[in-house]
Amino acid sequence: MSDSRAEREWRRADFPLLRRLETRWSDNDRYGHVNNAVYYTLFEQVMMGFLEESAKLDLDGLGLRCYTVENGCRYHDALVHPCVVEAGLRVSRLGRSSVRYELALFADGHDAVRATGSVVDVFVDAETERPTELPQTVRDALSPLIMDRDG
Amino acid sequence: MSDSRAEREWRRADFPLLRRLETRWSDNDRYGHVNNAVYYTLFEQVMMGFLEESAKLDLDGLGLRCYTVENGCRYHDALVHPCVVEAGLRVSRLGRSSVRYELALFADGHDAVRATGSVVDVFVDAETERPTELPQTVRDALSPLIMDRDG
Amino acid sequence: MSDSRAEREWRRADFPLLRRLETRWSDNDRYGHVNNAVYYTLFEQVMMGFLEESAKLDLDGLGLRCYTVENGCRYHDALVHPCVVEAGLRVSRLGRSSVRYELALFADGHDAVRATGSVVDVFVDAETERPTELPQTVRDALSPLIMDRDG
Amino acid sequence: MSDSRAEREWRRADFPLLRRLETRWSDNDRYGHVNNAVYYTLFEQVMMGFLEESAKLDLDGLGLRCYTVENGCRYHDALVHPCVVEAGLRVSRLGRSSVRYELALFADGHDAVRATGSVVDVFVDAETERPTELPQTVRDALSPLIMDRDG
Repeated sequence: MSDSRAEREWRRADFPLLRRLETRWSDNDRYGHVNNAVYYTLFEQVMMGFLEESAKLDLDGLGLRCYTVENGCRYHDALVHPCVVEAGLRVSRLGRSSVRYELALFADGHDAVRATGSVVDVFVDAETERPTELPQTVRDALSPLIMDRDG
Repeated sequence: MSDSRAEREWRRADFPLLRRLETRWSDNDRYGHVNNAVYYTLFEQVMMGFLEESAKLDLDGLGLRCYTVENGCRYHDALVHPCVVEAGLRVSRLGRSSVRYELALFADGHDAVRATGSVVDVFVDAETERPTELPQTVRDALSPLIMDRDG
Repeated sequence: MSDSRAEREWRRADFPLLRRLETRWSDNDRYGHVNNAVYYTLFEQVMMGFLEESAKLDLDGLGLRCYTVENGCRYHDALVHPCVVEAGLRVSRLGRSSVRYELALFADGHDAVRATGSVVDVFVDAETERPTELPQTVRDALSPLIMDRDG
Repeated sequence: MSDSRAEREWRRADFPLLRRLETRWSDNDRYGHVNNAVYYTLFEQVMMGFLEESAKLDLDGLGLRCYTVENGCRYHDALVHPCVVEAGLRVSRLGRSSVRYELALFADGHDAVRATGSVVDVFVDAETERPTELPQTVRDALSPLIMDRDG
């Protein structure tokens, strides 16, 4: 992972895909902030939303599942409901059967990033649950999200 | 973070504190596994449970809050509800105003670790939300969780 | 509560307010449907969203909280993520310190209602947590949601 | 549903089954109480826990699913994490393909009930998702939970 200082500089323009997400009243925990675990729910929403809704991939039909093997998040500044979140998504590595995403969450109307993170997903066969080579349709969908960058 | 291969070897004996947690029916997602975000809810449960229940610290009374600034998890093998989880907790760094925890989740009756992770929490003043030096009571509570180890 | 057959006939036109909500990937449970408890999260989102976002009431500033004393839901047909939900909200009773809402959830592009429910909220003083008379601003905000109807 | 006053009198002795449940730190919402939707997660935990863990029914193996068609809850007094909940479960109606449960949540060490509710589940065929007659094994498991009472 790049260091925390570098991630604080991530901007919307660093991401080929931005998706708007709504927080929910119950996302706020007793500290009045969106709870840490919810950020991963938002990450998942962006990644699966890209595959199933934007790219219209029928993962069930392809007999594929995405299993997360590793993820992480840095919380630079709290999200507080009510808030429209703009979530940036890019692909930092596209392997034979896995993909590593980088994500950033912005609050609508604010430049500074609130949270940055990464997720490594392995595509597995829905029956055997063993890693499987990415079909070309999935590879084609994810390729435009690969972004050259320093870091 | 240490590498994935090393973390796979983490065992119950590597942790000074083990806490039993119950999964919930709704923790399973449509893949029939405990959803990734729930692991962070379990981590939080173990850390806050240690401070508030085991060490009986009254964080509200002390005017303190724990804000997570960074966390991460590696998923070695899925947890599936129903399952009693044994969660290991240790402190890998105790700073002036922050603590870095390492955690491991085991399924009851199985040796191999299912998930490993880390969380960095900063203690802040409940009013100003600025980092604050750890009071001695908190430091005394966390110190027994510091564990010497390689890695 | 009116009976289940009657509620099945609820239509969008029966509600003075409709709000669009997005489901999340993690809303689906192991049966592949939005989990029952999530419907109450959506209800809460619509009610609190109306008060805090549409009517721009600053409940914290007014020293007010909404405590739910009773709620219920009938599940006529499952919601499945991904889905844009249109949620209808109306007020069926406006008391001295309480409000009874009726809600209906529709899936975008479908006429038949998926779920119907009701929630009774009491407004309490944030300090004492005792029921408090609705301020005129809150009463004015809720009044347009009162809908005459049979049932 | 019986009226609210009557439900306030429900006691542990009114329930043939009591199960202990742990709240989670994230169950508390920004009001510092267990969020309303979580009560339904606890209800589900008790019902499914009874079927799958106590009665050791293999619902998947039987090709059965439980679909909730109606539920409701009355909140008499707030649950606040951390708290061990004792949940009472009984069957108020056992039909051809459905069961109506009544539930009550108590806080450990307190007599007065915190929340009372009911859930109607229909057993459906996992393939067709159509209601199916309860197999005798399920009927035998649920029968001891039927409790005669006034109400």
